[in-house]
Amino acid sequence: MKAANLLGAHEMDVGGTRLPLAAVLDNLPWSAEGLIAAIAQQHDSGEVLMLAWMNRTALEETLLAGRVCYWSRSRQKLWRKGETSGATQHLIEARFDCDGDALLLRVDQNAGACHTGRSSCFYNAVLGDEIVILSNPGEAVP
Amino acid sequence: MKAANLLGAHEMDVGGTRLPLAAVLDNLPWSAEGLIAAIAQQHDSGEVLMLAWMNRTALEETLLAGRVCYWSRSRQKLWRKGETSGATQHLIEARFDCDGDALLLRVDQNAGACHTGRSSCFYNAVLGDEIVILSNPGEAVP
Repeated sequence: MKAANLLGAHEMDVGGTRLPLAAVLDNLPWSAEGLIAAIAQQHDSGEVLMLAWMNRTALEETLLAGRVCYWSRSRQKLWRKGETSGATQHLIEARFDCDGDALLLRVDQNAGACHTGRSSCFYNAVLGDEIVILSNPGEAVP
Repeated sequence: MKAANLLGAHEMDVGGTRLPLAAVLDNLPWSAEGLIAAIAQQHDSGEVLMLAWMNRTALEETLLAGRVCYWSRSRQKLWRKGETSGATQHLIEARFDCDGDALLLRVDQNAGACHTGRSSCFYNAVLGDEIVILSNPGEAVP
């Protein structure tokens, strides 16, 4: 049996509290597929780039290598971001949320994060009863 | 049978392209539980506040009311953010990602987004082989 989620158990602790990473990972509420959702954000501009998934192997590799590695749910394999496209993500800082089921990755993104070449995957804005595409492929999203 | 994911089919379209929202929602790749992941970001500071989930009802209510409503997976019911705590989220803009399985909500957050009172849920930073809590409950996350 797993111990209680460590992050949840310490959510009311004061700033500066330290917890051992290995124990936190042992007790994360991984999804049924063994995954955690990971948001990538450009560290300086604050632009939210993409949402993807990590298993424990991908997360540990990311923390060790300082280069972001996801788990591809469609291909069911490790996805070293930018390995073929060159659009790598250098990890600046990783932060877990209060209940440990999401990660915020503050990164330095090389070239567009989206496979369409746009800076961010979030380029489909809702405007009334329509979706408006905010930028051309290959360009920055305003 | 569903048509192909409309957003994916239009991913290489130029900026300014418009698609009907209802058709996009009909063809979103909702999860097995009928959900889409939603990231909330403070619209002016860029701070990433939280990650939660929406079903179609929650999303449609959010777009109509301009106040963010999620689907609580733990309580299995609509979760009108801030209904009891007062920490409401006013929707500024919603953006779908390239393949339609994630939403970015640009919001104006009233009081702390996290149930611990912190400004953001992402206050557990990885530092070497430890997690460091970045702020006290009730305070802003640096």
